[in-house]
Amino acid sequence: MHITDPRIEEYLFSLSPDVPDYVLEMEEEARRREFPIVDRLVGQLLSVLVRLKDPSLVVEMGSGFGYSAWWFARAMRKGKVVLTERSAKDLESAKGTFKRAGLLERAEFRLGEADDIAREYSEIDILFVDHDKARYKDSVEALLPNLAPGAMVIADNALWHGKVLSENDDDTKGVKALNNYMFNHKDFHTTLIPLRDGVLVAVRK
Amino acid sequence: MHITDPRIEEYLFSLSPDVPDYVLEMEEEARRREFPIVDRLVGQLLSVLVRLKDPSLVVEMGSGFGYSAWWFARAMRKGKVVLTERSAKDLESAKGTFKRAGLLERAEFRLGEADDIAREYSEIDILFVDHDKARYKDSVEALLPNLAPGAMVIADNALWHGKVLSENDDDTKGVKALNNYMFNHKDFHTTLIPLRDGVLVAVRK
Repeated sequence: MHITDPRIEEYLFSLSPDVPDYVLEMEEEARRREFPIVDRLVGQLLSVLVRLKDPSLVVEMGSGFGYSAWWFARAMRKGKVVLTERSAKDLESAKGTFKRAGLLERAEFRLGEADDIAREYSEIDILFVDHDKARYKDSVEALLPNLAPGAMVIADNALWHGKVLSENDDDTKGVKALNNYMFNHKDFHTTLIPLRDGVLVAVRK
Repeated sequence: MHITDPRIEEYLFSLSPDVPDYVLEMEEEARRREFPIVDRLVGQLLSVLVRLKDPSLVVEMGSGFGYSAWWFARAMRKGKVVLTERSAKDLESAKGTFKRAGLLERAEFRLGEADDIAREYSEIDILFVDHDKARYKDSVEALLPNLAPGAMVIADNALWHGKVLSENDDDTKGVKALNNYMFNHKDFHTTLIPLRDGVLVAVRK
């Protein structure tokens, strides 16, 4: 299903500014491998949110080869984004991109399970959730004590290709559970932005 | 045209928390008069952006009977939202709602032309653009000196019922001009969120 009318998406893309070569190369790699990345429109949203929040610590759960991490890092004025990834090859690729971008000092590259690694950090300003969909809600709930006051939780794939409307497999259940959890959590202001595959944005009051 | 699939919009509405009676009454009035208001989904987005920005001064260009202003004010921890409106009746109605909401101290009610009134303020943290579409770009450009460092510009109807794709009347031209202006302005990070009729969100670097 089309969450947003494709002609509107095309218009939004036409407005987007150009990106550096290494970003185009990541987009090309994503197409070639059919690797799910947040696209350029969501990337720009992440940069805008970073400018608003001015975070010192961003932790990504599930970084792939660093596409979303680049959109965070390029807008950060301080601190770092922690990339977590199970594939050593993708993590190396991310490191290469950050080197080309001159952003190595803005990043930490961690190989392993997102949940385990995220737990090592406290005072997280932005938790970016993009790992195993079935664990979405449980992972976020377990990490709330590790979030800074006023922290944001941003979750990609919050509409899960529209499956949230009708499906009930484990992945869809995990995504729906996180949406319900955040929207009903009295400590958060929450919105869900229908860009690409849906982006949940929650801010701790 | 449907900018976002109606089933997705329905799902987003189902997640939204309940609102007070006076908000339901404003929504009912909007339906009855076919008066354009940002809806509840955009309203929640405004509240989230307020929490991120923590503004002291929000200036609305075009407030109607205060629907969007309420979503700003409820999330503000300090300062005020300035409502501007040409209809004395709608402005009175807004005042009544803010009184019921216990938010009078968070608002200033100004009768007249949005452009003239906005120009009286400086250090604006959030400029909310929702007045005459044909003037969208010119109004914002003229007000840039009145914005605080790190200010946000938020414009409703940034997709103008999808007319940005093909139409060329004065209103559509004004909306498109603002989109192009903000996306190409080197001092701003800009995104356009396809919620309801489109919300442009730009943050000064």
